[in-house]
Amino acid sequence: MNRDKLKQLLEGVKDGSTDIDAALNSLKDLPYKELGFAKIDNHREIRTGYPEVIFGEGKTAEQVGEIVEFLLSKENNVLVTRVTPEMFTEVHSLCSDAVYHEAARCITIRRREPVYPDTNIAVVTAGTSDLPVAEEAVVTAEILDNKVSRIVDVGVAGIHRLFDQLDEIRQARVVIVIAGMEGALPSVVGGLVDKPVIAVPTSVGYGANFGGLSALLGMLTSCASGISVVNINNGFGAGYLASMINKL
Amino acid sequence: MNRDKLKQLLEGVKDGSTDIDAALNSLKDLPYKELGFAKIDNHREIRTGYPEVIFGEGKTAEQVGEIVEFLLSKENNVLVTRVTPEMFTEVHSLCSDAVYHEAARCITIRRREPVYPDTNIAVVTAGTSDLPVAEEAVVTAEILDNKVSRIVDVGVAGIHRLFDQLDEIRQARVVIVIAGMEGALPSVVGGLVDKPVIAVPTSVGYGANFGGLSALLGMLTSCASGISVVNINNGFGAGYLASMINKL
Amino acid sequence: MNRDKLKQLLEGVKDGSTDIDAALNSLKDLPYKELGFAKIDNHREIRTGYPEVIFGEGKTAEQVGEIVEFLLSKENNVLVTRVTPEMFTEVHSLCSDAVYHEAARCITIRRREPVYPDTNIAVVTAGTSDLPVAEEAVVTAEILDNKVSRIVDVGVAGIHRLFDQLDEIRQARVVIVIAGMEGALPSVVGGLVDKPVIAVPTSVGYGANFGGLSALLGMLTSCASGISVVNINNGFGAGYLASMINKL
Amino acid sequence: MNRDKLKQLLEGVKDGSTDIDAALNSLKDLPYKELGFAKIDNHREIRTGYPEVIFGEGKTAEQVGEIVEFLLSKENNVLVTRVTPEMFTEVHSLCSDAVYHEAARCITIRRREPVYPDTNIAVVTAGTSDLPVAEEAVVTAEILDNKVSRIVDVGVAGIHRLFDQLDEIRQARVVIVIAGMEGALPSVVGGLVDKPVIAVPTSVGYGANFGGLSALLGMLTSCASGISVVNINNGFGAGYLASMINKL
Amino acid sequence: MNRDKLKQLLEGVKDGSTDIDAALNSLKDLPYKELGFAKIDNHREIRTGYPEVIFGEGKTAEQVGEIVEFLLSKENNVLVTRVTPEMFTEVHSLCSDAVYHEAARCITIRRREPVYPDTNIAVVTAGTSDLPVAEEAVVTAEILDNKVSRIVDVGVAGIHRLFDQLDEIRQARVVIVIAGMEGALPSVVGGLVDKPVIAVPTSVGYGANFGGLSALLGMLTSCASGISVVNINNGFGAGYLASMINKL
Amino acid sequence: MNRDKLKQLLEGVKDGSTDIDAALNSLKDLPYKELGFAKIDNHREIRTGYPEVIFGEGKTAEQVGEIVEFLLSKENNVLVTRVTPEMFTEVHSLCSDAVYHEAARCITIRRREPVYPDTNIAVVTAGTSDLPVAEEAVVTAEILDNKVSRIVDVGVAGIHRLFDQLDEIRQARVVIVIAGMEGALPSVVGGLVDKPVIAVPTSVGYGANFGGLSALLGMLTSCASGISVVNINNGFGAGYLASMINKL
Amino acid sequence: MNRDKLKQLLEGVKDGSTDIDAALNSLKDLPYKELGFAKIDNHREIRTGYPEVIFGEGKTAEQVGEIVEFLLSKENNVLVTRVTPEMFTEVHSLCSDAVYHEAARCITIRRREPVYPDTNIAVVTAGTSDLPVAEEAVVTAEILDNKVSRIVDVGVAGIHRLFDQLDEIRQARVVIVIAGMEGALPSVVGGLVDKPVIAVPTSVGYGANFGGLSALLGMLTSCASGISVVNINNGFGAGYLASMINKL
Amino acid sequence: MNRDKLKQLLEGVKDGSTDIDAALNSLKDLPYKELGFAKIDNHREIRTGYPEVIFGEGKTAEQVGEIVEFLLSKENNVLVTRVTPEMFTEVHSLCSDAVYHEAARCITIRRREPVYPDTNIAVVTAGTSDLPVAEEAVVTAEILDNKVSRIVDVGVAGIHRLFDQLDEIRQARVVIVIAGMEGALPSVVGGLVDKPVIAVPTSVGYGANFGGLSALLGMLTSCASGISVVNINNGFGAGYLASMINKL
Repeated sequence: MNRDKLKQLLEGVKDGSTDIDAALNSLKDLPYKELGFAKIDNHREIRTGYPEVIFGEGKTAEQVGEIVEFLLSKENNVLVTRVTPEMFTEVHSLCSDAVYHEAARCITIRRREPVYPDTNIAVVTAGTSDLPVAEEAVVTAEILDNKVSRIVDVGVAGIHRLFDQLDEIRQARVVIVIAGMEGALPSVVGGLVDKPVIAVPTSVGYGANFGGLSALLGMLTSCASGISVVNINNGFGAGYLASMINKL
Repeated sequence: MNRDKLKQLLEGVKDGSTDIDAALNSLKDLPYKELGFAKIDNHREIRTGYPEVIFGEGKTAEQVGEIVEFLLSKENNVLVTRVTPEMFTEVHSLCSDAVYHEAARCITIRRREPVYPDTNIAVVTAGTSDLPVAEEAVVTAEILDNKVSRIVDVGVAGIHRLFDQLDEIRQARVVIVIAGMEGALPSVVGGLVDKPVIAVPTSVGYGANFGGLSALLGMLTSCASGISVVNINNGFGAGYLASMINKL
Repeated sequence: MNRDKLKQLLEGVKDGSTDIDAALNSLKDLPYKELGFAKIDNHREIRTGYPEVIFGEGKTAEQVGEIVEFLLSKENNVLVTRVTPEMFTEVHSLCSDAVYHEAARCITIRRREPVYPDTNIAVVTAGTSDLPVAEEAVVTAEILDNKVSRIVDVGVAGIHRLFDQLDEIRQARVVIVIAGMEGALPSVVGGLVDKPVIAVPTSVGYGANFGGLSALLGMLTSCASGISVVNINNGFGAGYLASMINKL
Repeated sequence: MNRDKLKQLLEGVKDGSTDIDAALNSLKDLPYKELGFAKIDNHREIRTGYPEVIFGEGKTAEQVGEIVEFLLSKENNVLVTRVTPEMFTEVHSLCSDAVYHEAARCITIRRREPVYPDTNIAVVTAGTSDLPVAEEAVVTAEILDNKVSRIVDVGVAGIHRLFDQLDEIRQARVVIVIAGMEGALPSVVGGLVDKPVIAVPTSVGYGANFGGLSALLGMLTSCASGISVVNINNGFGAGYLASMINKL
Repeated sequence: MNRDKLKQLLEGVKDGSTDIDAALNSLKDLPYKELGFAKIDNHREIRTGYPEVIFGEGKTAEQVGEIVEFLLSKENNVLVTRVTPEMFTEVHSLCSDAVYHEAARCITIRRREPVYPDTNIAVVTAGTSDLPVAEEAVVTAEILDNKVSRIVDVGVAGIHRLFDQLDEIRQARVVIVIAGMEGALPSVVGGLVDKPVIAVPTSVGYGANFGGLSALLGMLTSCASGISVVNINNGFGAGYLASMINKL
Repeated sequence: MNRDKLKQLLEGVKDGSTDIDAALNSLKDLPYKELGFAKIDNHREIRTGYPEVIFGEGKTAEQVGEIVEFLLSKENNVLVTRVTPEMFTEVHSLCSDAVYHEAARCITIRRREPVYPDTNIAVVTAGTSDLPVAEEAVVTAEILDNKVSRIVDVGVAGIHRLFDQLDEIRQARVVIVIAGMEGALPSVVGGLVDKPVIAVPTSVGYGANFGGLSALLGMLTSCASGISVVNINNGFGAGYLASMINKL
Repeated sequence: MNRDKLKQLLEGVKDGSTDIDAALNSLKDLPYKELGFAKIDNHREIRTGYPEVIFGEGKTAEQVGEIVEFLLSKENNVLVTRVTPEMFTEVHSLCSDAVYHEAARCITIRRREPVYPDTNIAVVTAGTSDLPVAEEAVVTAEILDNKVSRIVDVGVAGIHRLFDQLDEIRQARVVIVIAGMEGALPSVVGGLVDKPVIAVPTSVGYGANFGGLSALLGMLTSCASGISVVNINNGFGAGYLASMINKL
Repeated sequence: MNRDKLKQLLEGVKDGSTDIDAALNSLKDLPYKELGFAKIDNHREIRTGYPEVIFGEGKTAEQVGEIVEFLLSKENNVLVTRVTPEMFTEVHSLCSDAVYHEAARCITIRRREPVYPDTNIAVVTAGTSDLPVAEEAVVTAEILDNKVSRIVDVGVAGIHRLFDQLDEIRQARVVIVIAGMEGALPSVVGGLVDKPVIAVPTSVGYGANFGGLSALLGMLTSCASGISVVNINNGFGAGYLASMINKL
């Protein structure tokens, strides 16, 4: 809110054309729900177009339950990531249609009918061991009302497998590419498609992989253009960003 | 090209409905120009929708000149990044309307009239010292036919400067955020806009900055959603990806 | 004790104006209690104004018990950090009014009535997962006779939550800011308050967080002034230093 | 500004008890001066109690000159850090009483008479090679109206040199300790004084020093309490924070 | 397949000299078996001369079983690396002559009689703790039809033990040298033999070993020639490459 | 030389069937030429099959000249790597047919007619900036009497360029693959050929490349088999090892 | 054994003045005991003056037992480091006077009466948590027939505790100083004694300690002279080296 | 000085048996010379047995000159390390018999006749490029009155060169081993001699050498016993420690 708009608003208050409550609403800006241990950003959907997502790691099952309960009261869809089985038990006791995505380690609760855009998101993985990260991306993109196509196990060591799937990949509006070890797949895909590529390094590998560092550095220094990178194993972040781009 | 399409193509060749040259065109797929020291990917524009860009670093002025000469013969727009003054002298001798962007360390040559999309790209920088990287992003996005708005020096230590520019940032379809030191600006922007944020860490800073590592790690581990990261100081990569998203 | 004072002292001894015991007291300087496996610095309070604190990690429950027992004989307040439940059992058997702070992993025993300074300390956290570190800081500051206000879950991705608490934060004499992931919160707070900010990076996060490294580097390279940093997850160190500043 | 105060303000505007300009002043909040390449935070002094400082590195001499010129028009004291000789030439041409601190690589211009607090700041260095960083701290603290005592070359390898200066160090309200190599001096000082210690690692050393990393890690993991750390070679940050604490 | 060959092929299809199925076989190139969670590269043996190997880590026992089942249907030899006991139980239930190599953490199933080359591979280890990695290399090389000689515990701290085995090492066509800690053995061996040395760093050691980093860096910077390095603990990779060289 | 052979030798000496000089020759084992500042390993050729190569870095032009002079007296071919122009001036004054390979930074002197094996070595580079490292590998392999084919600029971002050269690459007996940035090319090549691949990471790139670290880690963690890695920019090491394999 | 001595020896064999067995003994040089999984260096004591020590980590209890059994047959003293309770059970069943040092995680068996040198070794630790490493050093030094004095808990944060022990430390011929966290103690001790200081970094600490890295780097970059460093937590290495120096 | 001795001293002062000046001498303990920018520790020789050495790096030529001048007034031998030619010019103008050791980058001035111990120090280097570090060690050891034998260019890639020098190495009382690259030489030497080995990693090498890190980690994790390590390129530290051990 810049100075001019502000002046206008205040003049409106002064001359009565804007009532105080309306002005307050314009100015209070960004409220949230105080839960004591957390502040739920319930205007976030209005502000950024997306609901708050619960990052389960480091929270207790009780804390997760309490936040879910609040969000449900708003008739929002709910996504909880990095969950434990205990968290699902807690959430399920509050809401019997909560869905547990075991491989993805996510919980989803759907409250609003999805309205899908025409375009879709491709989620491409280099190897079988990258699937949990891919599933986190898929679950995220789907609860945010996107159609997703999965292309699995097309790593660069057997690159013909990738070429056979190129048509399907090229139909997507945005492509998530997930790989561990040397993380080379996004570079190859980036050179073959004309869509944004979101690269997700995974911690799959050992030794000089250093917990995903090799894939991360490889993706950041990719010789292909149109690629950007999210954190190691961050399937959620990739799915969220892909949804954002898919709906532009 | 999958097996079924391939069979169809071959049957067309056999029965004469597809002539050999057309089939060759379908199959030859991805030709390029051999220059001896480089292979110019002149079908790249068809394949990925974008012309080949010349990365100047590590090339001689002569090599750059030779590649530019070839690209000009195709009536393509040309972008050369990470150039030296010597490279510009060389290129300018070949093409008098080449433009030297000194801060951005880029050369551009425009050969086709721009057709701009309705939406634009915002390039946001944390500090004055991040400007060269920002300029590389701006020059890249502009030669790729995008309108760009610059928002400079709105780093998190004086965060009111950012808020004053929020309306302008929110009007963009995609936002590039450039920051060195702790690289916190993309997190803040990401929490305030509902558009994809491309974060560019810079090597601005000293000591525990470790050549941009602090900003890079900060951006990768951002607590905000909708953010992805490119390499340290990679203004070009950000501009290219932003253009890709802007034109979806 | 410099040369001149030393000479004076010795002359006092010689001429009898200072008796040997007094001189000894001046000279013996810095005694301690020998426990065999540890030397308890029982004059530390006089020397630095603060009691010795027991760092529980790497000690056995028996060792902790033995040290607590000695300290109690001095009628000191006691703080044990990084404790296990076994340690509390041991300490509780020695002293029934020992208090176990589970989230903070601390034990406190109060022996002297607190005398609070007029000013207080603000402890600000970016996210719910940072709470254990915050609690360690709070427990430390309180046993050292400070009043503390907690401001939780105001991370930069939803920065309006922070602004709503600014008045409370600004009332403090010194501010502890605790954040994991990209560790951006201290930079934002540092730009908004005119008080010393003690930044505490936490290991909250994953992947490129590298156990707190991203937050640590981010805080060290902060673009805001008036900020200094303690070790990753070092709530105790922050609470101790804040107390020191609060009582200046 | 919280909701209640906001309501009050708006009611004041409505009933005329607060005029629009006053309200604007309360609400516009945090203006700044737009210079095109930079936004000068000229209300920063009111907001955080300190003037904007110019970080010279990565700026041109012309940019520095332009910012200095603006700040002088406000009759502020001016501090420019990490300057080059060219910057001083530029600044000196604008303002003949600008002072060049060569070792500290700083420029200062004094416009207001200093009002010193009663207490002072001690700046302690381990070795002769740490002096430039120490000077940056001293110049910073002095332009911010503090009295500073220097204690030089008292590194831990000849620890008796430190003990001889302890009385002087203990008289300070806050102590800056600067060391390279293993960075052990803050731990020793921290165990001997009851004042906040601001530790500044320097890049002095070679080999496993890794540009100051050894000193940085050593200070962060210090076994002494009451210590916090700023960035490698960040004499300015230490001086600024020390001033803030000294004036509490 | 270059452009000329392609034209020739298509002309053959057109004039009937090449039938469509044959052309398809030439063009389809590189098929694979789709298992849903994985794509088995069953033409890999033709393409690279070696069967697909199953990397067990990160797969479920069921997934391993399913892949093994498919491979057996092709009458291939099978190698599974990084297995758990559960995986062996699963595989053994499918195939009673599967062999479990416990130290090597491998499963092998032999379906074709070995045809050994005349030359052999030497596997040399620095210490007893390196044996599991050595066994992985041996099992790999043997299932790929090579004869292997083991030389164990000849680390550089008792270098006479190595000299006594030099004749045996020199008889090999290619030498795998496995070492942890400082990883010096490949340098010494490389200076004494005129055969390719494949160096395998192991994570054996502690402290500044950093999980094998010391041995890895040591081998990469070896002052001897004729040495190349595989990933930390990558016995399989060394055995596979040695087999490839042994059969040239 | 084991115990049994040793006994035999000594018995031969005793009974006169072996004369002392012959025994000495067997036992003296490994002589060298003492130059004061260096010991030239002139029996190395006999021991490992290859002449000593001079690593120029860190030596003076005079030292290089002196070593070259000695080697020439043995009628050996000579290779000097990492040379400066000054070194070539020095060497050229000693030997007018010394050849300076400027891009490769090598000097060669040929004294014996090459005897080439039937097979050849392929040197494949990802980009134009990798050429200096490739040239070092080529010069090394050629002076060691190998035929080499160069395949340049076939990086993974335009992967069709690679496929077009596959036939030529597959004809080689051993393949050197050189790449900077993400270093993905060896993985792709390794999946397409059935020959040993020697991967050479280069320092080409910037930012998260960290001087070649990204390419190095990527190659070490490659998902393809049959790949091993040499030091960053170590064209010589790759050429030497390839020669060794090519002549097996 | 140089060329001249070798010639002399062979002439002795030839002329009968040296018999073959004696020559063999001179030449066989360095035999060892082959256990299949290990080669025990039983002449090591003659060669380096010290018995082989068994590093337990990574060995099975059975392997340890087998090696101990062999060593006992030689009437050697035995030291096993990094043992598990299972290893002790195994060893104790073979040798009832084996001693288990639990804190040090060592087993010793004494077979020869100690002959102590007049001088002793001081083992100094910074904190209670460093004791296990100190005990490993003490046990090692004692089984190698040295007298050891322990000085515990004299870390730099309470440096007067160190000064009180200086006389005892100065009486030693060589000083082992063990510290975690910032690892500053060796620098302080090194500046106060005129004896070699062996610094042992420990992994005691957390966060920026990075498993002992902070202490390691601190000790390597120490500003004091006369200090050298062993691996993190390497109490054995320090005790062994101290013994070597103590007996010079 | 412990409590009892202190009491005794004070009683002596009181009863006149000790005069004040003598007591002062006992108590003043550790004086130094104040030069403003440095405190010269001129009683260091008495305290630790060695004169203060001047570390030239980071000092101006004038500062070095001033310190040298003071030290000469004490008739001490002088050693300045890491000098520039300018420093030598300055020192030479003060003292015409100052000796400049160019390779070692040291200046020495001898004022007292050397008294050599019977034993000597061996300085062993792996390669020619390690010579400057070796020379620093040699110059240091010699000015401290030790006899030194140099053994150069005996790196592990041609290990027979080492064996030929073993007799000479074994005659030394303490062995300094200097190596870059993989730093393997100390491990080999440590397994062959029964004397303390001081390992000095050098920054010789490139790529994965990371400025000496590979050699440093290799030496720290050495599998041989009796080895300790000093900082990268720290020839002075090795020479100083070796002298200390040689004179025990």
